[in-house]
Amino acid sequence: VASADARRANLRAGKGFLASALAGEGRCVPTSAIQAWLEDRRRSHRFSVRPIPFDRLQSWSFDSDTGNLHHATGRFFTVEGLRVTTNYPAPATLCQPILNQPEIGILGILARRIDGVLHFLMQAKMEPGNINLVQLSPTVQATRSNYTQVHRGARPRYLEYFVEPRRGRVLADQLQSEQGAFFLRKRNRNVILEVEEEIPPHEDYCWLTLGQLKAALRTAHAVNMDTRTVLSLLPLASSHLELEALGLAERARSDGSFAGALLRSSLATSGCVSSAEELASWLTCLKAFSEIEVREVPLRSLPGWTRDEHSIHRDDGGYFSVIAISAEADNREVPGWSQPIVRTHATGISGFLVKPFDGILHFLVQGHMEPGIFDMIEMAPTVQFLPGSAVQTPPYLDFFLDPPPGSLRLDGLQSEEGGRFYHYQTRNMVVELPETADVELARGYVWMSLGQINQFLRYNNFVNIEARGLIACLGLDEWIGGG
Amino acid sequence: VASADARRANLRAGKGFLASALAGEGRCVPTSAIQAWLEDRRRSHRFSVRPIPFDRLQSWSFDSDTGNLHHATGRFFTVEGLRVTTNYPAPATLCQPILNQPEIGILGILARRIDGVLHFLMQAKMEPGNINLVQLSPTVQATRSNYTQVHRGARPRYLEYFVEPRRGRVLADQLQSEQGAFFLRKRNRNVILEVEEEIPPHEDYCWLTLGQLKAALRTAHAVNMDTRTVLSLLPLASSHLELEALGLAERARSDGSFAGALLRSSLATSGCVSSAEELASWLTCLKAFSEIEVREVPLRSLPGWTRDEHSIHRDDGGYFSVIAISAEADNREVPGWSQPIVRTHATGISGFLVKPFDGILHFLVQGHMEPGIFDMIEMAPTVQFLPGSAVQTPPYLDFFLDPPPGSLRLDGLQSEEGGRFYHYQTRNMVVELPETADVELARGYVWMSLGQINQFLRYNNFVNIEARGLIACLGLDEWIGGG
Repeated sequence: VASADARRANLRAGKGFLASALAGEGRCVPTSAIQAWLEDRRRSHRFSVRPIPFDRLQSWSFDSDTGNLHHATGRFFTVEGLRVTTNYPAPATLCQPILNQPEIGILGILARRIDGVLHFLMQAKMEPGNINLVQLSPTVQATRSNYTQVHRGARPRYLEYFVEPRRGRVLADQLQSEQGAFFLRKRNRNVILEVEEEIPPHEDYCWLTLGQLKAALRTAHAVNMDTRTVLSLLPLASSHLELEALGLAERARSDGSFAGALLRSSLATSGCVSSAEELASWLTCLKAFSEIEVREVPLRSLPGWTRDEHSIHRDDGGYFSVIAISAEADNREVPGWSQPIVRTHATGISGFLVKPFDGILHFLVQGHMEPGIFDMIEMAPTVQFLPGSAVQTPPYLDFFLDPPPGSLRLDGLQSEEGGRFYHYQTRNMVVELPETADVELARGYVWMSLGQINQFLRYNNFVNIEARGLIACLGLDEWIGGG
Repeated sequence: VASADARRANLRAGKGFLASALAGEGRCVPTSAIQAWLEDRRRSHRFSVRPIPFDRLQSWSFDSDTGNLHHATGRFFTVEGLRVTTNYPAPATLCQPILNQPEIGILGILARRIDGVLHFLMQAKMEPGNINLVQLSPTVQATRSNYTQVHRGARPRYLEYFVEPRRGRVLADQLQSEQGAFFLRKRNRNVILEVEEEIPPHEDYCWLTLGQLKAALRTAHAVNMDTRTVLSLLPLASSHLELEALGLAERARSDGSFAGALLRSSLATSGCVSSAEELASWLTCLKAFSEIEVREVPLRSLPGWTRDEHSIHRDDGGYFSVIAISAEADNREVPGWSQPIVRTHATGISGFLVKPFDGILHFLVQGHMEPGIFDMIEMAPTVQFLPGSAVQTPPYLDFFLDPPPGSLRLDGLQSEEGGRFYHYQTRNMVVELPETADVELARGYVWMSLGQINQFLRYNNFVNIEARGLIACLGLDEWIGGG
């Protein structure tokens, strides 16, 4: 039975994100010093990563029967084959290697009010596939194998807050999917807990406001994918009360900046192009009328793919390959290891086309099928494109290859998760069109306000990781520092 | 791009359910005549159903390799074997036959405002496993095989409203799960569309208000499971504005009846025992920390189960068996057919324990694992019990076997779906305890207001079909007819 205190705390829930997003400076590290601090953490440790042939992998081997690549313990993940037959968005049969990692890991961030403003405990963490090795990562980033200590390494720092019994107040706690193009039904627990007590400091960690994190996201490859997916669960503004409490209600009503438009869109759940019921119906119909048959098949006999001593690659050399690497780090749970990893062959594009309707900014959202997806179809950015994939020229791609003058609201390179991807980067973009622009709605696309997207984000498996990563990058730039 | 009209219609969405729930009489059939009408439809058709040995099944056969029972076309459903290894709620390995029906069917109800009050178009439909053969069913109840006409029968009446392009305004449209104890990841589209135009009448259909349907639910086996799951998507009250519009706000605040408590609970999403974030976290943690491994195995080699010429049954004769039946009906898409069907060996119990906290009625909800469940764990009634299943005496069972005097708010027999279950009935119960009662919270249980349950009902795969069926039975009895 909850106490009156707990109930009062519940009523407070959801508040404080906006104030933190508007805090361009925090109490622990000057914003201008974040990159130098990351660089310092990078220099203070010994890291090395190099590609190796498969036969140099430790504890990993190809199954003699299926050709699947697995770890001797049966844990971590397996590289398998997948065959998908679908009629959405168009009839196709897709065959490709897929990473099967059925366990649910933890991506956890601790939060704390310092001088009344929410700060988040970020980790300078090395991942072997990161372009710059060390990026801002969640407080805890642990696979189940990790935290049940299959590798016999140290227990991840601060893990105790996130296992049962949970310590702290829940700000968000969701199972969310990861890249369905590369993972078979993989999901992680995305969780943010607010604690009251001081946390023992450690040199690889620092407290940052949401505004500081949004600023760090302006630099390429500074904030890792796991941080982005967790932060996406925090709405820019969750109620008008929050704006009023900060004395910003009037400004938000009339402000002509993109930040103002984002705030208004974040609060819009009615008066939108589609009702919540219509959006649910749109997705339900896409799922009900699509036929998607997913079959795990032996990696050995995957049509169009070849394995040699260095990689599993497509015969045309395109899209991606699976390679092996050897890694060393003096501050990880285990000092040295080797593992398979996905190497993509091009830079991806994730882009939202946005446009006001009756003054409310809407995002053009795609119902997207991916081979390893958890539930058939998820909400994705307008364009989600990696050269070599099945869809060669998706609708609306031209808006991102050649944006109309003055339309670019966001444009930055971000890394995909460095534990499973080797130097995989995606260009994250937002292109805004004027209210007068006439955009034809292709089948499988729908306009949603940011507030409507946030509603779906509060439930599992609706908004895909590419869309979540982009949403995390949306900041209130013009509103910071009196702008 | 939505027109201004469409946007105005969106703003209206969600309204009108309460007025319909309070309408104890409709414009088409007197409430007292519903059972006689059902009886009349039953008498006016020729129906017959009888058990047959497996070798008399038409177009169904056992696979010579796996022993799985399938249809010659590969469609409809397959009876397969399932092995589940889990640690939730307790370590166990479960083996049982399971119905694999991967296609998404339609459970669709058409709604129309008659004299301003929402009426729903209900069908008197025969299903072979129904105890009384004919029950009130959705306007359209069609498997994908059904509506793509694999059986070469007639196209289901009114189907055209529910396929693309959809005709009518969406009141609800969700993919929802069915019994995870018997189906492998089965989901159906639960949809209610409001139309403006008159619908051509047909003798097997009639228009009823929500209040009339709630009244019909007081009679055993009158309203089928498909109707109950679809109706569960309509909240009793969705906003205070709705109560004000009907002049009921004051009465709802102070009314001491169970109906009043239900209305207040239906509107309570804050000030509850747990916040929305805490509820999401509770379910996320149950999923993240449970290990559930589901493996399809050949039916032939299922430990503890035996097939003879009449049934596939457990060696101890308990729980359920799979049998075969032959059916005839002169008003179905095909006049005669035979099929496998699940026969349960006892009456089930589905019961919610409810209790006020600070004056707000809360429901004791269970995180429930079922072998064929779509997403590991769903929200279930306090007690969901079929003798012979793995859990022999679930927590809180005594409240339903021997309810405290004066605590029973609902108690009725309902049928499970007669197309897949043969005479499977469940006792649906609600037991209310006083605010002063001290109920210990077992692991995996949580208190939720009806409004909080309704929030999760707006998204897929959170609230299981047993809970949805019970929620559909909740009516405003004391408020109907001035009571």
